[in-house]
Amino acid sequence: HTDTHLCMPEDARKRANRRLAIARGHLESIQRMLEDPNVYCMDVLRQIKAVQGALQGAAGVVLRGHLEAHVATASERGDAEELIEELLEAMKLTQ
Amino acid sequence: HTDTHLCMPEDARKRANRRLAIARGHLESIQRMLEDPNVYCMDVLRQIKAVQGALQGAAGVVLRGHLEAHVATASERGDAEELIEELLEAMKLTQ
Amino acid sequence: HTDTHLCMPEDARKRANRRLAIARGHLESIQRMLEDPNVYCMDVLRQIKAVQGALQGAAGVVLRGHLEAHVATASERGDAEELIEELLEAMKLTQ
Amino acid sequence: HTDTHLCMPEDARKRANRRLAIARGHLESIQRMLEDPNVYCMDVLRQIKAVQGALQGAAGVVLRGHLEAHVATASERGDAEELIEELLEAMKLTQ
Repeated sequence: HTDTHLCMPEDARKRANRRLAIARGHLESIQRMLEDPNVYCMDVLRQIKAVQGALQGAAGVVLRGHLEAHVATASERGDAEELIEELLEAMKLTQ
Repeated sequence: HTDTHLCMPEDARKRANRRLAIARGHLESIQRMLEDPNVYCMDVLRQIKAVQGALQGAAGVVLRGHLEAHVATASERGDAEELIEELLEAMKLTQ
Repeated sequence: HTDTHLCMPEDARKRANRRLAIARGHLESIQRMLEDPNVYCMDVLRQIKAVQGALQGAAGVVLRGHLEAHVATASERGDAEELIEELLEAMKLTQ
Repeated sequence: HTDTHLCMPEDARKRANRRLAIARGHLESIQRMLEDPNVYCMDVLRQIKAVQGALQGAAGVVLRGHLEAHVATASERGDAEELIEELLEAMKLTQ
């Protein structure tokens, strides 16, 4: 991408940041679980899965912010094609 | 699961713990990215995707430890059926 | 959605159709594999995975057609918001 | 894998086969949808998603058959390690 890429709205950056902070706290609690010799394998996998879901949610926030800020104005800017390529790449990244 | 669940080997717990510590550091660096008003949406999505890959790796370490510790001895313990149900659930959790 | 939903471009419909035809042929060949008592479990899983990749590709063709036909003209039609909701749902569907 | 790989139980092969037949019929109906110029993009994506779920189910049947036939007897055969590597690969394939 070029230096002229589209910026993320502040609100989306803040909301994504908060979600990542929560995911980070969750990872810390899984690390504490793993210090217990009696931890149950499946419980760890379930907690890791929950964090994956939270990260998916954070990615959704980022993407929604991008779309809301830029789709409606794509034809004015004349960069609809570039936006589409980004969206299709984003789809692969959020899979 | 019952109180008699199978324990995770210490080595697997330690390796999974290390991987989660790295993922946590990675999340922190994404949070710093999000403080920059010029951050690029796609870069954030790529970094979140990388953390998801790391968590997938941590889940793989947990599962491998479980399998290595318990599959070979399933017939002795007589809990092959329970182990299979766990494995099939684990498959869904690591998807 | 309403009766006034946006249509898929003919080209995208044709290309998606061709991909689904190929996936269907692939499924038929996996069914033949499964008639062999000596079929190897992992080979079947690999082939099923390949078909899932092909379906993912077909979904990508559908989505690209939709985006190329409608993003650039969203502000003229005034339905950017609806388009964004669709895109975010599509993301979840192609995961 | 070697020529001495473990066979799939007949029952699992039959059940997987039936599921693939259903998925194939479903793909055929999506192809018919795509012949309609008024087909709605999101409906096609939803149907493709449903087929993906059906294939995931078929893969689950294959894997369950493999596990039920071979985990309990792994220590007798002395191939627990090979079985574990297969399982971990299968996890990746069914993701």
